[in-house]
Amino acid sequence: MTIKVKYKSDLDTPCLVLDMDILERNLEMMQAAADGAGKNLRPHVKTHKCSSLALKQIEAGAIGVCVAKVSEADSLVKAGLDNILITGPVVTPGKIERLIDLLGLSPNLMVVVDHPANIELLDTALYTKGLSMGVLLDVDVGLNRTGVRPPDALALAGQIVSRAHLRLRGIQAYAGHVQHIQSYDTRKQSSHRCLEGAVRVFREIRASLPTCTIFSASGTGTFDIVLEVAEISELQVGSYVFMDAEYLAIGSADDDTRFVSFAPALRLLTTVISANHKGFVTVDAGLKSLYKDGGKPQVIIPEDSALVYDWFGDEYGRITSTDNSELPSLGSVLELVTSHCDPTINLFDKYYLTRGQEVVGTWPIDLRGCSQ
Amino acid sequence: MTIKVKYKSDLDTPCLVLDMDILERNLEMMQAAADGAGKNLRPHVKTHKCSSLALKQIEAGAIGVCVAKVSEADSLVKAGLDNILITGPVVTPGKIERLIDLLGLSPNLMVVVDHPANIELLDTALYTKGLSMGVLLDVDVGLNRTGVRPPDALALAGQIVSRAHLRLRGIQAYAGHVQHIQSYDTRKQSSHRCLEGAVRVFREIRASLPTCTIFSASGTGTFDIVLEVAEISELQVGSYVFMDAEYLAIGSADDDTRFVSFAPALRLLTTVISANHKGFVTVDAGLKSLYKDGGKPQVIIPEDSALVYDWFGDEYGRITSTDNSELPSLGSVLELVTSHCDPTINLFDKYYLTRGQEVVGTWPIDLRGCSQ
Repeated sequence: MTIKVKYKSDLDTPCLVLDMDILERNLEMMQAAADGAGKNLRPHVKTHKCSSLALKQIEAGAIGVCVAKVSEADSLVKAGLDNILITGPVVTPGKIERLIDLLGLSPNLMVVVDHPANIELLDTALYTKGLSMGVLLDVDVGLNRTGVRPPDALALAGQIVSRAHLRLRGIQAYAGHVQHIQSYDTRKQSSHRCLEGAVRVFREIRASLPTCTIFSASGTGTFDIVLEVAEISELQVGSYVFMDAEYLAIGSADDDTRFVSFAPALRLLTTVISANHKGFVTVDAGLKSLYKDGGKPQVIIPEDSALVYDWFGDEYGRITSTDNSELPSLGSVLELVTSHCDPTINLFDKYYLTRGQEVVGTWPIDLRGCSQ
Repeated sequence: MTIKVKYKSDLDTPCLVLDMDILERNLEMMQAAADGAGKNLRPHVKTHKCSSLALKQIEAGAIGVCVAKVSEADSLVKAGLDNILITGPVVTPGKIERLIDLLGLSPNLMVVVDHPANIELLDTALYTKGLSMGVLLDVDVGLNRTGVRPPDALALAGQIVSRAHLRLRGIQAYAGHVQHIQSYDTRKQSSHRCLEGAVRVFREIRASLPTCTIFSASGTGTFDIVLEVAEISELQVGSYVFMDAEYLAIGSADDDTRFVSFAPALRLLTTVISANHKGFVTVDAGLKSLYKDGGKPQVIIPEDSALVYDWFGDEYGRITSTDNSELPSLGSVLELVTSHCDPTINLFDKYYLTRGQEVVGTWPIDLRGCSQ
């Protein structure tokens, strides 16, 4: 059964809705910021998992995109995207085989490396297929997740350069641990401090290898801060497209109480399905449609309400009011700005695109579930 | 590219693996428990989201299945399942239309109701289509989520009975809040106490309406406890098929430190993709493949290790050791028992089925993402 939907109020819930006017302003704003500082934009697709939106980012001026996983790159190549960087190491023989198959289709595909054993395995596999591949050295700037620490980075860079089938194109230095620091000034200081080591590494490599031109860094939380770092060549920002309650709550250059540079374009619609109690009502979005991470979502419709969402099991949420105002009635639809948006998006198969109250189309979340 | 996989060690990660021998023992054990007490089994499919496994539960003796959402019921009907109960209210006109379309294909479909407005809307929609539908009265036994409180239940039952197109088949009384109480004795007392009101409601309704025969209750945590309640006619247990770290940690009748009735059949495989630091390694399963809810997952392969998993962002996890023993090397694959299994399953598209180390097939998680 297909229902022709025309208005937001016709949509079945829970579902994800994109305000296209806001989304387009966010895309323009970030591109203008990068352009203004002479930086490239290579947005991270792990946030939105949508090849249609990735193409829109390219149209807006991005030079390429980032993904976290080989399976994401696979879907993007099939959708016609090029210049893809995989931002995590690919280490097992099976996954390296898949990576190299993809490289055959998309010769500009790049991957990060952080370990001698990985460098050897990758180079050997490329030799077998008669291919070469661009790689970035993943430099750990204090996130303590993947990457090599700056003191060990030059030795590893040397190992890459010594391999016939790897082309060292630059470095990646993702400071994930500073992106959500509340105070803008503290975030700025932390960002600059933690990038210092990576900057030195990059300068040294580039001095002896002029083809090493890429310094890929930043997230949404430091997008304007890293514009001041001359060595950084590109921004791998993700969440700015949609924003989420977690990012909206941090300070920005113009307002230390909230992040005003981008506006929330993504909303989750949820319906009141039980209203038998004083003090709360139950809605149809729970753990499986609103990922429990990064604090609470924000209720934005009804506007200016004192309503608060909290999770209540896999399929349900609970709505209460902080000022004892009237609760929404049975069948009412609420709009929420998600908390940490990335994992919530990964729970859905499509976005409904809206302009005002009208639904103007859908985009498949075609990279949903691409975790391999 | 399709790789013919024969062994677990050939699987790309992260992925979900089902140990079929353990799964079959869990199915038999639960069915035998229900049969022994003269109860029906109506397992909750929201846990596994898989029509192939639902059919296996029916083959093993279940009389039907539960789902939380209309879209889940839709997928199951298409897969040939019958006798489906939707365990949450369906309240909006659009969703009621979808429900009634499905009823046309599957006349035994039932739904719970908990509100006069919903009863009226449902009855009117059924009248329009010339259909009637079996419903269960959802009784809130203290979970405080959906359902009507026992003092108001009889009046609502009367309203259902007065409607020409609704057939009151019985009640649902899900005590979700007691399922994970650590102490078996406390859980037993709490379960009996909270069901008392529902039992009285059920007796009263049945006294005047002999066709009201269904009392649907329980979860995995109280499966054996509710067998003692004469009025309960069927168990809507879910997690017993797979078990998870959250359930394995609660006490059971035979062992107050762990849940020994069922064994863990579901495992998540994850690979070490970075190993540059003393004290931890990084694996390829993060928030998007291992849902952060219900405590930490258990590392079970390597066996008897002191390894601990913790989330580290959308795509990564961190493995540490509590006894400073050696950490797994780059490329090693670990097997985890997930924490709260339901939302993690909803992140994947298929299960790999194994017997010992051999991969013997796959099952699509065809209800994945059915949140509407």
